Amino acid sequence: MLRGRSLHLSSLVYSKKPINIMSVTDQGFTIDDVRQAEQRIKGYATKTPVMTSHRMDAKAGRKVFFKCELFQRTGSFKFRGAVNFLSKLLEQSKDGPAPCVTTHSSGNFAQSLALASNLLGAKAYVVMPSIAPQCKQDAVKEYGAELILCTPTEQGRVAAKDKVVEEKGAVYAPSSQHHDIMAGQGTMFTEMFEQVDEKLDAIIAPVGGGGMLSGILVAAKTLQPGIKVIAAEPELANDCYQSFVAKKHIRQDHYPNTVADGLRISLGDVAWPIVRDLVDDVITVTEEEIKESTKLVWQCMKLCIEPSAGVGVAAVMSDKFKALSPDIKNVGVILCGGNIDIDSMKNWL
Amino acid sequence: MLRGRSLHLSSLVYSKKPINIMSVTDQGFTIDDVRQAEQRIKGYATKTPVMTSHRMDAKAGRKVFFKCELFQRTGSFKFRGAVNFLSKLLEQSKDGPAPCVTTHSSGNFAQSLALASNLLGAKAYVVMPSIAPQCKQDAVKEYGAELILCTPTEQGRVAAKDKVVEEKGAVYAPSSQHHDIMAGQGTMFTEMFEQVDEKLDAIIAPVGGGGMLSGILVAAKTLQPGIKVIAAEPELANDCYQSFVAKKHIRQDHYPNTVADGLRISLGDVAWPIVRDLVDDVITVTEEEIKESTKLVWQCMKLCIEPSAGVGVAAVMSDKFKALSPDIKNVGVILCGGNIDIDSMKNWL
Repeated sequence: MLRGRSLHLSSLVYSKKPINIMSVTDQGFTIDDVRQAEQRIKGYATKTPVMTSHRMDAKAGRKVFFKCELFQRTGSFKFRGAVNFLSKLLEQSKDGPAPCVTTHSSGNFAQSLALASNLLGAKAYVVMPSIAPQCKQDAVKEYGAELILCTPTEQGRVAAKDKVVEEKGAVYAPSSQHHDIMAGQGTMFTEMFEQVDEKLDAIIAPVGGGGMLSGILVAAKTLQPGIKVIAAEPELANDCYQSFVAKKHIRQDHYPNTVADGLRISLGDVAWPIVRDLVDDVITVTEEEIKESTKLVWQCMKLCIEPSAGVGVAAVMSDKFKALSPDIKNVGVILCGGNIDIDSMKNWL
Repeated sequence: MLRGRSLHLSSLVYSKKPINIMSVTDQGFTIDDVRQAEQRIKGYATKTPVMTSHRMDAKAGRKVFFKCELFQRTGSFKFRGAVNFLSKLLEQSKDGPAPCVTTHSSGNFAQSLALASNLLGAKAYVVMPSIAPQCKQDAVKEYGAELILCTPTEQGRVAAKDKVVEEKGAVYAPSSQHHDIMAGQGTMFTEMFEQVDEKLDAIIAPVGGGGMLSGILVAAKTLQPGIKVIAAEPELANDCYQSFVAKKHIRQDHYPNTVADGLRISLGDVAWPIVRDLVDDVITVTEEEIKESTKLVWQCMKLCIEPSAGVGVAAVMSDKFKALSPDIKNVGVILCGGNIDIDSMKNWL
C-alpha cells in the first residue's frame, strides 16, 4: 500500500518516460486517493467488465481492451466519483450532524449523486434545468433525491444551487472539478490494471471537464509510468486540444453543439494542471467519426454506448492514432457511458 | 455424465411435474446430444455472460437472469448450432474426402455457418436472396464463405441450395430443423444452469422455427424437471401459440410482418413434437410491446438487442406472466441476438 502524497518509487524505476512528479504532487492528488476511493466504492459501484472484439481489433490494427463503464450503475462512470465524494464527506462529518449534498447537472452526474445518496443514506438536492428530459427528471426522483427545477441557463443553475447551499446547509458536490470526484474516476484504471493480463501500452479517454481524464492520468502514470495516456475530444469542443497545444488553459468561448453531449463542458480549472503535466496527446475527431464509431460499437460489440463514449472509439480508429508507433500493441479505451437519448439520436442515425 | 438415450434418473426424483420421457426419447434427441455439443463448441463459441439489472427486476416484479447471447460470435445463438452441426459432420467423415456445406438464409444463420466453416476449415456455400442487405452479404464473404445470390423467393432459395448440393456435393445445413442444430442451441441452458447460483423457476425463450426452444426444452426439462419453459412469440406470427392451443401443428398461412424479423419463420416439423410435449405455455406479445421492451433493454441494461430478443423481454413484463404463481421467483430470459439493422430500425424508433 502507498501512503502519503509521494508516488510509488518502485514504479519510477520502470518508467520509460520521466514524469513530472512534483507537478502531480503539487496538485495534492495521488494514487493514494484512488486507492482510498477503491475501498469506499466497494459494494456500491459495479466492477465493470473489460471486453474485446476480434472485429474491432482488426479495424483498429491493434488489440483493444474496452472498459465497459456503460454497465456502471446509473449508466456512466460518474457514479464512482459521486460515491467517493459522498462517502468521504460522511466519514469526515460522522461526529456532527448528517450532511446533505447538492449539485446542478442536466446529465449523468445528477443521477449518480441521487443514487449514491440513496445508498449511503444522505439527503440530496439535485438542481436540473426545467427543460431536462422527463425521463432524466424521473430517474433522479426514482433514486430518492429531491428535484429542484431551475431556469435553463448557467446562471439559473448556479443561483438555484447556491440557494440550496444557503438554505439547507447542503455541501456542493461538483460533477468533475474536485479531487475526490477524480479519485473515484481513477478506480476505472486500477480495476483495468488488474483485469487485463497483457501490458497496456496506451489508454484513450474522452475529455469534457477533465475529471475522468485526471483520475486516469494519476492512476495510470503512477502504476505504469511508460503508458501513453491520450485524450479524445470532439473537434467541435476542442478546448482541451487547444490548451494542450498552447500549453495554457484556453477556455471555450461558445457552447459546442457536438452530438457527444457529455463532452460539451469545458476543461475545468482543477483538471487543467494535471492534464497539462501528464497527458501525452489529444486527438480530436469529427462529428461524422463520432457517429460512425458509436454505431460501429452497437453493431460489432452489441454495446449501447452513448456518443461521448464513441469519441474514444473514433480516436483509436483515427489515422492519427494508427500512425503512432507499432510498439503500441495493446490499447485500453474507456467506454464512459450508455445513457442514450433515443429521441435526439433519431436525428442523426 | 449421461449416456444412452434415457434421461438422467436422479433428476426425475426431484421432478415437480412428471415429464413425458418417451416422447422426448421418441424424437431421438436427448441431453446427451447437448453434452456432446458442449464439448464440440468449446474453444469456438463464447460462453456468454448472464446479466441482471435492479431496474429490470423491479419492473418484472421478479429476479430476472438474462442470458446474453447477443455477445455470441456473429451476434446470435445460431453460431452454437452451426459449430455443432459442422463439427459432427467433420467427425463422421474424417476418413473420407472433406465435406462442404451449404445453407440458405438471409439472416443470422448465414453468418454463423460462414464463420463456423472458416474456423473448422470447411468450405461453405451460402445462398442469400439478392435483396439481402449489403452488410450481411459482406459479413458472409468476410468470414470466408462463398456467397451465391438467388431470386428473393422461398422457391428461389431452395432451388439455388439444391443446385449447390447437386453440383458441389455439399451437405445441407438447415438453420433450425435438425437435432444437431438444436443440441448446439441447448448448450445455452446447460451453461446458464452452471452460471446462475439461484434455482431458476422458469425460463422464457423466443420461438420462430423452434430450434432454440427445442434445445432448451430438452436440456432444461432433463436437468431441472420442475422448471417452467415458456415460449415467447409475436402476436403477428403466432403459429406456435395456435399449435399449442389446438394441440396440433398449425402452419402459418401468411408471411408475418413483425418487427422481430428473426421470428417470422414458422415452427418447423422437427421442433413441433418436442414443443408439443414439453413446453409449459406460449405467451404472445404485440408489436408495441416488442418495441418498448427492446428499447427498455437498450436504455436500462445498455445491451443492443435485436427486436427478436425483445420478444422474450416483453413476455416477462407481460400481465399474463406477472399473473403466474408468485412461487416463480427466478426467471431466465434468453436474449437471443443483437444483429440490429439500423436502417429498418429507424422506421419504428
